[in-house]
Amino acid sequence: MSAVYPINPRKTEYEISPIFVNRWSPRAFTGEPVEDAALFSLFEAARWAPSANNSQPWRFIYAKNGGTGWDKLLGLANENNRRWASRAGVLVALLSKKTHIRNGDTEPTPLRNHSLDAGAAWASLAFQAVHVGLATHAIGGFDRDNAPAVLGVPEGFQVEILIAIGKQGERAALPEDIQAREQPTPRKPLANFYAEGQFNFKE
Amino acid sequence: MSAVYPINPRKTEYEISPIFVNRWSPRAFTGEPVEDAALFSLFEAARWAPSANNSQPWRFIYAKNGGTGWDKLLGLANENNRRWASRAGVLVALLSKKTHIRNGDTEPTPLRNHSLDAGAAWASLAFQAVHVGLATHAIGGFDRDNAPAVLGVPEGFQVEILIAIGKQGERAALPEDIQAREQPTPRKPLANFYAEGQFNFKE
Repeated sequence: MSAVYPINPRKTEYEISPIFVNRWSPRAFTGEPVEDAALFSLFEAARWAPSANNSQPWRFIYAKNGGTGWDKLLGLANENNRRWASRAGVLVALLSKKTHIRNGDTEPTPLRNHSLDAGAAWASLAFQAVHVGLATHAIGGFDRDNAPAVLGVPEGFQVEILIAIGKQGERAALPEDIQAREQPTPRKPLANFYAEGQFNFKE
Repeated sequence: MSAVYPINPRKTEYEISPIFVNRWSPRAFTGEPVEDAALFSLFEAARWAPSANNSQPWRFIYAKNGGTGWDKLLGLANENNRRWASRAGVLVALLSKKTHIRNGDTEPTPLRNHSLDAGAAWASLAFQAVHVGLATHAIGGFDRDNAPAVLGVPEGFQVEILIAIGKQGERAALPEDIQAREQPTPRKPLANFYAEGQFNFKE
């Protein structure tokens, strides 16, 4: 990696599984197809994420590069994201369902943590991608107003993020102005994130 | 596990890393302390989760069983959850921050995916727990109205979930009426979760 990428700026303060620091979000993809077995293994991993009352509120609308729905999904991404996401192998819209019918009930109940649960599924998908040698990059910059209509999403669902999936490409193949950002990001110190007993974070 | 737990109902349709199916959410904890090195490795893993613009909007307020803040955190859980969560080694409130000051800006911008990003951190924490032999269980049933005041959480943050962390205990030590639920949950068929090109899920 060192020949292609800048020095990895990631240092951990506690020992953790390498999967957490090896996962990052490149923009350089090769444009190659993703095999179905790998793609569906990503959805499979997401399926086992934890969720409130096992409600499993995640849904994935996917399109293969050049295939059914590709232009619609790519077209939803902001212009700056389209510049690199156009070379992903697959684009996915991650949806969450906002209600759930509990065991024994007949009427749906609101799911307060539908977005959080979708985030757990997204992380599972991203880790399984590392496991099979693929890269992922979540896209928050997309046309949120028009996404439901473009994708045929009914009331009761939220389009959370787009996800680019593919084989990681060479940094040098990216548009020049994007190349500088093409490296694993660092994190704030761990002490910024935990507090004992009550809130005492400096913000 | 088979001597202590019912038959594991988890079957995958595609091959995935065992970490996804090995992680589940038991209610039986031993009440033993969690070592600091293990506890902080869980927050460390969460720290490397992906987030919009690397905003890292997750915060963790923790309490050790019997230690500073324990009664407040346990007291926030609904009565039914307190029955088993009282034997966790650590309780955590996961918060998300709703705004972020982007690079080069001086004013904060709303983070639309703060809950989703917190969910990615929660999943990372849960997977790292499996890695160090601990169990986790997210608690959505807690006093959401009073949690901010009890924990001293200011405006601009959301208390997302509580998380019980600890060493997994024997099913038989749980209150009898909870024992039947003490097993890994299955999932709906994978085909329920993905669609090509546009929304066509049956709901």
